[in-house]
Amino acid sequence: MRAVVIHAPKDLRIDNFPDPAPGRGEVRVKIAAGGICGSDLHYYHHGGFGTVRIQQPMALGHEIAGVIAAVGEGVSHLAPGMRVAVNPSRPCGVCIHCSEGLHNQCLDMRFMGSAMRMPHVQGGFREHVTVDASQTIPIAEGLSLAEAAMAEPLSVCLHAAKQAGPLMGRRVLVTGCGPIGALMVVMSRYAGAAEIVVTDVAEAPLTVARKLGATHAFNVANDPFALDAWRAGKGVFDVLFEASGNQAALRAALDLMRPGGVIVQLGLGSEMTLPINTIVAKELQLRGTFRFDSEFELALRLMGEGLIDVKPLISASLPFDNAVAAFELASDRSKSMKVQLTF
Amino acid sequence: MRAVVIHAPKDLRIDNFPDPAPGRGEVRVKIAAGGICGSDLHYYHHGGFGTVRIQQPMALGHEIAGVIAAVGEGVSHLAPGMRVAVNPSRPCGVCIHCSEGLHNQCLDMRFMGSAMRMPHVQGGFREHVTVDASQTIPIAEGLSLAEAAMAEPLSVCLHAAKQAGPLMGRRVLVTGCGPIGALMVVMSRYAGAAEIVVTDVAEAPLTVARKLGATHAFNVANDPFALDAWRAGKGVFDVLFEASGNQAALRAALDLMRPGGVIVQLGLGSEMTLPINTIVAKELQLRGTFRFDSEFELALRLMGEGLIDVKPLISASLPFDNAVAAFELASDRSKSMKVQLTF
Amino acid sequence: MRAVVIHAPKDLRIDNFPDPAPGRGEVRVKIAAGGICGSDLHYYHHGGFGTVRIQQPMALGHEIAGVIAAVGEGVSHLAPGMRVAVNPSRPCGVCIHCSEGLHNQCLDMRFMGSAMRMPHVQGGFREHVTVDASQTIPIAEGLSLAEAAMAEPLSVCLHAAKQAGPLMGRRVLVTGCGPIGALMVVMSRYAGAAEIVVTDVAEAPLTVARKLGATHAFNVANDPFALDAWRAGKGVFDVLFEASGNQAALRAALDLMRPGGVIVQLGLGSEMTLPINTIVAKELQLRGTFRFDSEFELALRLMGEGLIDVKPLISASLPFDNAVAAFELASDRSKSMKVQLTF
Amino acid sequence: MRAVVIHAPKDLRIDNFPDPAPGRGEVRVKIAAGGICGSDLHYYHHGGFGTVRIQQPMALGHEIAGVIAAVGEGVSHLAPGMRVAVNPSRPCGVCIHCSEGLHNQCLDMRFMGSAMRMPHVQGGFREHVTVDASQTIPIAEGLSLAEAAMAEPLSVCLHAAKQAGPLMGRRVLVTGCGPIGALMVVMSRYAGAAEIVVTDVAEAPLTVARKLGATHAFNVANDPFALDAWRAGKGVFDVLFEASGNQAALRAALDLMRPGGVIVQLGLGSEMTLPINTIVAKELQLRGTFRFDSEFELALRLMGEGLIDVKPLISASLPFDNAVAAFELASDRSKSMKVQLTF
Repeated sequence: MRAVVIHAPKDLRIDNFPDPAPGRGEVRVKIAAGGICGSDLHYYHHGGFGTVRIQQPMALGHEIAGVIAAVGEGVSHLAPGMRVAVNPSRPCGVCIHCSEGLHNQCLDMRFMGSAMRMPHVQGGFREHVTVDASQTIPIAEGLSLAEAAMAEPLSVCLHAAKQAGPLMGRRVLVTGCGPIGALMVVMSRYAGAAEIVVTDVAEAPLTVARKLGATHAFNVANDPFALDAWRAGKGVFDVLFEASGNQAALRAALDLMRPGGVIVQLGLGSEMTLPINTIVAKELQLRGTFRFDSEFELALRLMGEGLIDVKPLISASLPFDNAVAAFELASDRSKSMKVQLTF
Repeated sequence: MRAVVIHAPKDLRIDNFPDPAPGRGEVRVKIAAGGICGSDLHYYHHGGFGTVRIQQPMALGHEIAGVIAAVGEGVSHLAPGMRVAVNPSRPCGVCIHCSEGLHNQCLDMRFMGSAMRMPHVQGGFREHVTVDASQTIPIAEGLSLAEAAMAEPLSVCLHAAKQAGPLMGRRVLVTGCGPIGALMVVMSRYAGAAEIVVTDVAEAPLTVARKLGATHAFNVANDPFALDAWRAGKGVFDVLFEASGNQAALRAALDLMRPGGVIVQLGLGSEMTLPINTIVAKELQLRGTFRFDSEFELALRLMGEGLIDVKPLISASLPFDNAVAAFELASDRSKSMKVQLTF
Repeated sequence: MRAVVIHAPKDLRIDNFPDPAPGRGEVRVKIAAGGICGSDLHYYHHGGFGTVRIQQPMALGHEIAGVIAAVGEGVSHLAPGMRVAVNPSRPCGVCIHCSEGLHNQCLDMRFMGSAMRMPHVQGGFREHVTVDASQTIPIAEGLSLAEAAMAEPLSVCLHAAKQAGPLMGRRVLVTGCGPIGALMVVMSRYAGAAEIVVTDVAEAPLTVARKLGATHAFNVANDPFALDAWRAGKGVFDVLFEASGNQAALRAALDLMRPGGVIVQLGLGSEMTLPINTIVAKELQLRGTFRFDSEFELALRLMGEGLIDVKPLISASLPFDNAVAAFELASDRSKSMKVQLTF
Repeated sequence: MRAVVIHAPKDLRIDNFPDPAPGRGEVRVKIAAGGICGSDLHYYHHGGFGTVRIQQPMALGHEIAGVIAAVGEGVSHLAPGMRVAVNPSRPCGVCIHCSEGLHNQCLDMRFMGSAMRMPHVQGGFREHVTVDASQTIPIAEGLSLAEAAMAEPLSVCLHAAKQAGPLMGRRVLVTGCGPIGALMVVMSRYAGAAEIVVTDVAEAPLTVARKLGATHAFNVANDPFALDAWRAGKGVFDVLFEASGNQAALRAALDLMRPGGVIVQLGLGSEMTLPINTIVAKELQLRGTFRFDSEFELALRLMGEGLIDVKPLISASLPFDNAVAAFELASDRSKSMKVQLTF
């Protein structure tokens, strides 16, 4: 079997890869679609992010869906031919955080396509993956495998939305409109926000944001005063989803938040210098959000019932042996939102 | 009447000051005790902090208590001779934030001894103040006026404690043990924290912290590894009260917080550079806290019933005409915790 | 001017009524539409509910909208001809609960068409009402006055939804599908519920519920086992909106709630006998919800921007001098959902 | 080995009982002290409560502590001679509620001395118990085994306190002052309540409540108007801990709660008839609380560090072969608070 493997920055190869038969409690899934995530791009361009660096060749990919090809012993609720999304997250289930119900904070997490542990946990950009049966979730009939492969980023955004508290009737600002920012628009609309304002420094994603239900979408590179109307009093946004990882975006937004407003930080951005007195004086809350937990099944349920539609985000699908072209396309924000590989 | 007036950095004078008779709904209070706050010291040493700067002579002081000397028309529940604490905060009561119950975020706040608005609101280091009757709260018989003058910083700390959510059974870290940090120790103990660890870079305040109920108090200037025992797993503190305003203290504490932990930032510190990825990956919450609201009456009630004892914090009392000496003493952390003026 | 006035149970008359010119800060509104609420029906059929009883003739009605006819002195932001919804709630603004931001709990509330205080506050089923300018909210161009008159019950439901905490991704049960239950379906869909199950004992409202977005709508009079699928484990609903005021509905629902589930009680129902051990053992939360506060403006904003559509609920409009027929129609659940009077 | 076994109402015997050697991962504990709980008394007097009934002989007791007598294979962190409290709760760890971190709601719970499942899980009033090693928690040096046996009811009360949200500065009412009500006084004091009012219909427990820190303790059988001072406005208590299971106590308290107040129901009371309109109109929250989870270790830690003192509650200790006398004494509220058996 072949896989999309990162060896070093800009050294992405299609390699042969072992293809183990499913053991007890496992299933083998023939992958159909795999979305390229921002972290995949970080591995591709820079070999990692922050302190996380590739130290050995690693198959990328953790937004995947496909068809069950074989089931191991003891797996009775799944069968070959079933269409499933693959949950890339595999917490240990017994550490202190798992026991508290915070599985995304597991002390012994195995997350596909992540270089956080050694040896790295191999990713899902492969013709087949063999995973624990609990990691495969059957999908609704009307849902395509391309949509199912969006379950992972949608889960991340459902989790982020929960960090913000109730969104119903709230004024929401989303800074940065890559796939995660765009999904936060979808989420905010779904959860009943009264107003959703989106900013970016590129035009193309803002056009997508408007289609997804943003009340306003501004290119702040062209119009730095676009948000002045939201500066009234001490500021009016109840919630900020910061999805750019850009210090300037976060700093500018602080002045637009109402007292007690909640900032959910999704974008990774290493060091940021912040005016701490603004956070203190307005009693703002800056909250981190990391991956997801039970939201994976919820994401599939909401898409399966037609309550959330992610199709407008999927901007291109390329064959996996064209991975380098796909990664370059995914890196060009003027041309793409979410790029998927097909297998 | 005389007042302690700041004219410029290091230019603190005892000036003559107008002494108006109380109008309708007002009372005149003969001040007995006034505590020197960190912001008073900022005006004294630097002429202000951040963008807040003295632009005209201003009487300092907002931690004051005294005896009612005269009452204006229409004030029936107060009478001369009553011992009262003076609430320096006077929100407008009608702006959007007042209407929501967030009076400390009032858009038209008049806060005594603050240069935030022009003309500045004159402070309470005076022989008499004339204020709205609603700003004076009678105190319990057993409470001294020196203790009553602690109601303001205690209110700040009650408000900060609320930002943290329930403290019962929690592991609490307090970084910075000036008067505010020390009161956070008192608060954390009062609210049922299971463990309270305090850090500072000076010995004297740590000795006070131990007396106030800290489980451990460490001089991290001398022993940078003092907190390594709390680094287990992803870190173990549930709550941090950051009262130093020092970037290094906050950064070091991030690694000691458990996932989902809450950081309440009390210390003002202008710009701080933070590892945003740590906040994201551990889903930490950084919350600002600013002044107080209904906590002022609660502070007096808790002290009045003997549930909270602030006496160990009052390290010196000097006559107000000795203000410069008092301000210098208050600036020397090796010799003082809370310094009060007497009138 | 004429008004719809209740004198005694079943004694509803069209009476002449004083029509004062607007005083300082007031406006006179020519009423266009007025919705009949369950409490109006209680006054009509029983002379009141619980301990609240009509003790003098009272104009009914508190779901009203119209056009400004005249403005008093000092009102600059409103002008004759403006289309407005009238907020029937007028809290005092200064009592302890108003000061805390809980205006719906005002100790000196004046609520139109309520017999709670003596003399009663006259209601809005009149050709004109003269109210405080702050009680009239201009409406969006595309919004009809009939829809604007739905702002009040929608506010009640927005407030109730807030009591439940975040609804995004939750499984919601709504028991009782009168106008309030039906609006809770609208709200739950708007706020992102994953599943909405509705029960009633009549067919007609269930048909409306399905149109409004209910996942399932069951007539539990015909099929007492309809909800058995939700009984799995300890029960699966996260949230119950109890809008029937019927003890049997609430009791039956307790077994369907997941541990820690939240029950928001909207329906008034005097005494109810409950299996308290079920509430204890499953750690359920039964929360009351009462009227609304700032949700009134939010309701108008959400309808005005087309985010919430209440038109499917308005089942009939009758001229106000036909009030008795309208009240009888509104009492027949097989024929009506929300009945409005026109003026 | 001998055990205290209930056979039928009023038929409590000292029976011979099997004494298995500890298997892999288990330990045998020589029991030293065992507290008699209200549920033990229910089994003794009535054979159970609600739908839970003894269907086979069952050793009672779930408040136990002792000394490790033997450890099974694979247990390395415990050794004979260690003093431990025994956690009677053994959740499955894998069901949906365990996975969410709600172990007290486990679908397959094994709780010692409970007739909820068949065959019943045998209780801990025995000379020895053999349990999973994870159920034994070593205790601090200064803590007696009698105090350690209080860890279970203290855990129940820590869990109940959490249901109430922050108690710091709150006004708390406790209705019913048996051992659980008395511990809620301890908890409320520990967690920083500003005022704690306790009611009961017997004098003896009220005397204990006063010693434990209650601000006021009233015998409402003698003085039905005792609480009238707390009836001001709409009522003033922020939190009610209802520990009597008595409908009259709960009903009376509803009028004393402030709007939005929280009622935590601890007392089991089968059916209760409540004025639902009061709950609705004041937006009260009635929350159930059931057993405990991680609070067991916290209880031991707080007692071990001297932060919570339960000694004043232990009113008598009798040898276990005198169990009938001990149960009768525990049933007499005029003579006892917590009665323990010694082994």
